[in-house]
Amino acid sequence: MTKATYDTGNIFAKILRGELPCHKIHEDADTIAFMDIMPRGPGHCLVLPKKPARNLLDADADSLVAVARTVQTVARGAMKAFQADGVTINQYNETAGGQVVFHLHVHIIPRFDGIKLRHAGGPMEKPETLAEQAQMIRAALAQS
Amino acid sequence: MTKATYDTGNIFAKILRGELPCHKIHEDADTIAFMDIMPRGPGHCLVLPKKPARNLLDADADSLVAVARTVQTVARGAMKAFQADGVTINQYNETAGGQVVFHLHVHIIPRFDGIKLRHAGGPMEKPETLAEQAQMIRAALAQS
Repeated sequence: MTKATYDTGNIFAKILRGELPCHKIHEDADTIAFMDIMPRGPGHCLVLPKKPARNLLDADADSLVAVARTVQTVARGAMKAFQADGVTINQYNETAGGQVVFHLHVHIIPRFDGIKLRHAGGPMEKPETLAEQAQMIRAALAQS
Repeated sequence: MTKATYDTGNIFAKILRGELPCHKIHEDADTIAFMDIMPRGPGHCLVLPKKPARNLLDADADSLVAVARTVQTVARGAMKAFQADGVTINQYNETAGGQVVFHLHVHIIPRFDGIKLRHAGGPMEKPETLAEQAQMIRAALAQS
């Protein structure tokens, strides 16, 4: 369905290969979750399959199921960690669909009554804040 | 995780029970997909599990997997039917997270270069337009 092919030079591929750091929340055989460095709100994080997939359109069945499970797990953990009132899940496919990095990823954004999302695309959050928030979500997941 | 319980009077529960009509795209043992009556763009449709779930936070494992599979299938079909440039997937949990109807549902919105999404929440699309768009996606799914 997707015309373009997977580009192994994308930044999430580099994170998955350990060539770039991330503030990791969760990792299992098939998926990884880490903080978005340009969060639209506190606790904004991402879930990716480890297997290369450009986006939802070309993902294989195993990656799809694994990502869905991790999204639910991390969404529950983020709700708990931030005592959030809700959570917004966004997943963008191709540039027209809002995608910027071309490795399948799902956005998980804790939400709070009366607080709008910040715009996508910046600014960058401080590393120490991201590290603290990742720890908060990891702690919530460890308790569940 | 979710404090509130499932309300059997929500409009998607009524659609699932056949008490309200919908412009159906897909149905299998575990999921249904139909057109959003207040679309944010042409082809905007929804995927739901048949089993009661308030949202992603309380969905059981089977519903989660089934919904993920149907979302991918319908997203591919909608891309093809509308010759879209991309597709945006949104899933809202609790009022703060953007949820309006409290039966788990995933939004699938075909996207086109340079065209922004219309605002959520209206206006209603003409039934004949929704019927035509549902037929376009069904036809694309039948070919795949």
